[in-house]
Amino acid sequence: MDIKHYINQVGQQAKFAAQHMAYATTHIKNQALLNLAETLQQARASLLLANQQDLAANPDLDSALLDRLELTPTRIDSMIEGLHQVAQLADPIGEISHMSYRPSGIQVGRMRVPLGVVGIIYESRPNVTAEAASLCLKSGNACILRGGSEALQSNQAIGTCIQQALSKSGLPIHAVQIIKTTDRAAVGELLQLSDYVDVIVPRGGKGLIERVSREATIPVIKHLDGVCHVYIHNQADLTKAIAIALNAKTHRYGTCNTMETLLIDQAIAEKILPQLAILYEQKSVELRGCEKTRLIISQAIPATENDWSTEYLAPILSIKIVQNAQEAIEHINRYGSHHTDAIVTENYTVSREFLARVDSSSVMINASTRFADGFEYGLGAEIGISTDKFHARGPVGLEGLTSQKFVVFGDGHVRSS
Amino acid sequence: MDIKHYINQVGQQAKFAAQHMAYATTHIKNQALLNLAETLQQARASLLLANQQDLAANPDLDSALLDRLELTPTRIDSMIEGLHQVAQLADPIGEISHMSYRPSGIQVGRMRVPLGVVGIIYESRPNVTAEAASLCLKSGNACILRGGSEALQSNQAIGTCIQQALSKSGLPIHAVQIIKTTDRAAVGELLQLSDYVDVIVPRGGKGLIERVSREATIPVIKHLDGVCHVYIHNQADLTKAIAIALNAKTHRYGTCNTMETLLIDQAIAEKILPQLAILYEQKSVELRGCEKTRLIISQAIPATENDWSTEYLAPILSIKIVQNAQEAIEHINRYGSHHTDAIVTENYTVSREFLARVDSSSVMINASTRFADGFEYGLGAEIGISTDKFHARGPVGLEGLTSQKFVVFGDGHVRSS
Repeated sequence: MDIKHYINQVGQQAKFAAQHMAYATTHIKNQALLNLAETLQQARASLLLANQQDLAANPDLDSALLDRLELTPTRIDSMIEGLHQVAQLADPIGEISHMSYRPSGIQVGRMRVPLGVVGIIYESRPNVTAEAASLCLKSGNACILRGGSEALQSNQAIGTCIQQALSKSGLPIHAVQIIKTTDRAAVGELLQLSDYVDVIVPRGGKGLIERVSREATIPVIKHLDGVCHVYIHNQADLTKAIAIALNAKTHRYGTCNTMETLLIDQAIAEKILPQLAILYEQKSVELRGCEKTRLIISQAIPATENDWSTEYLAPILSIKIVQNAQEAIEHINRYGSHHTDAIVTENYTVSREFLARVDSSSVMINASTRFADGFEYGLGAEIGISTDKFHARGPVGLEGLTSQKFVVFGDGHVRSS
Repeated sequence: MDIKHYINQVGQQAKFAAQHMAYATTHIKNQALLNLAETLQQARASLLLANQQDLAANPDLDSALLDRLELTPTRIDSMIEGLHQVAQLADPIGEISHMSYRPSGIQVGRMRVPLGVVGIIYESRPNVTAEAASLCLKSGNACILRGGSEALQSNQAIGTCIQQALSKSGLPIHAVQIIKTTDRAAVGELLQLSDYVDVIVPRGGKGLIERVSREATIPVIKHLDGVCHVYIHNQADLTKAIAIALNAKTHRYGTCNTMETLLIDQAIAEKILPQLAILYEQKSVELRGCEKTRLIISQAIPATENDWSTEYLAPILSIKIVQNAQEAIEHINRYGSHHTDAIVTENYTVSREFLARVDSSSVMINASTRFADGFEYGLGAEIGISTDKFHARGPVGLEGLTSQKFVVFGDGHVRSS
């Protein structure tokens, strides 16, 4: 069977399974998640064996990739624990809200329903297979999973467990399908399968996400850069400002919600920058400053225009001194990536202005940008982070895999002219 | 200036204006709407003159198109009245919801924000110009309007009024831009302007919507077919069933929420079909039935497989007798267009099953499909009806032109490991 035909068949099967998943009860969906946890537990030896085959087949991968590819007993524990957690989340499907009577006498509300078929494209980490399947299952969607080719054996082994768990729970086995070919053309076909797939979620590096955005004719929940800012206003509490500026940069360097540029009001720059510079130096953070910054902390190297829009994902920080909130907001909206931006201030009016005018998926007052995260926000699980505005914006939980239909209750009501 | 360059410039200007619109106050936005109402009032003579030029320039249009193109004093009254209504709608922008404290101590909520730049593509009716502009303005978006080429003079005249009103209210004049060329290539360019345009809303016939869906690289709020069903369950109240089946078909024939197929349980078909046939006959509705239907009402002509998926938009009705709710639901999900479908029943369990399993943007119990409408649902205004699930589903009000960003309030909170 050629790739096009194969992917088309997978899509058709998923669409059919999605009709059943849409009205599977919460109990059955949770049971399937717990069955999967148990099946993985029993299949530990075969999972590790399959993973050893993947590792052996890819001796040329660098150590970071090998680490992501590896399944260890601890990682299997985490997969199992994750399934228990998803089973405990509230079921979003069927929730009816906004019910109200209209002047005509009908009662109108909205009911939350699954999107249908979710395509998830990810890279080397095989534990994503169980996690992605669990989120789609809980939200009543069918899914098509396409993992990295280097993890093929591991993903197939996990897939076998998923099939067993679905079957044991009485759910359609095509509710979760794992693409069984490493041919890259399969991804291209999947991205065009608009008759059967309702949304694509890429999980991985920038290269993957850019390819998916470019080729997909289906809506994509996508996450691009995180060029995040902290702006220290001249009426900031200095203790809070220093704690937040330090945490936002140094808590973790490689995450998308890490601060990359610090903006600071001219009026308090001399007071705060020298203290901050010492703290950053202790953490070996390289500082790149505007001219005014370098007059205060001479150890900063000159920042170029390019620095203001760079996501370093590294212990590097660009610093710019601004005149006021107006300039800070304009800088953020111009150079930032609309991900997460914070102000530190005690001023009520300025905080309200920042909140309203900064065009980012998360806008914070007196809190570290590092909080921008599905778990920290209480979403329970994170499908991904959206840097788009259409459909979902910011961290996306189970709700991002759902839609709302209108429901109308009447007692024989008809429309008059 | 070539078309590509021109559309690109319009896009850039819109993006820039959108930043200002996003934080324009409710008062200023409402003032602009009322100023526009007044400006149109004063410009009545020049609007009618421009419209006369359009009518004169298009002598070959058929009477339906000419009717849509014509601006009459009554239609200008309606435009003005519409602006007053939009001014009275609640402002969706800035609404903060779901605020709650998290275990970390931060307070997290969601704030409603505009999408940014909305592109609206419509056909001959010039009154859409004022309506579309008013909805985008109220929801804090900038917009680019592309009306039918035959209405160019009328649209430019309305556009001049819009510019005056924006300017008088202190809003950026590029917040509403009307494409000043009739070259069809302009639409193609607009549909690819993903750097500047956040969503495209086509308003018009099927041909337009199909073109937009095919060519756009930007999200589209689109509405395709309305193949709507009423299913009369064997435990239906006969009075309600007859009233709803009659209203859903005959209240208006050309609307997307009109019933096109009637499904009826075998057990009550003999009781109800002859009565309905008489009523439909009085309204000159042509009946096309399945074999079993024709055994009961011989005047029905045979329905073909094709009838089950046809949107007649005419006094024609297809009728199918089914065994039970299961068969009805499967028929609707297979042949319908996922627009609006209703059940008539007094049975609690069957009504719940229908609600959960019918995969349509509006699902109704004991009410006419004709209620599927933004005004009937209380949305205040209707941008369009979405037959997609992503972002918005069903009638789309001002909320469909907005998104939600996360807002986080802290007191110096930082993330610990």
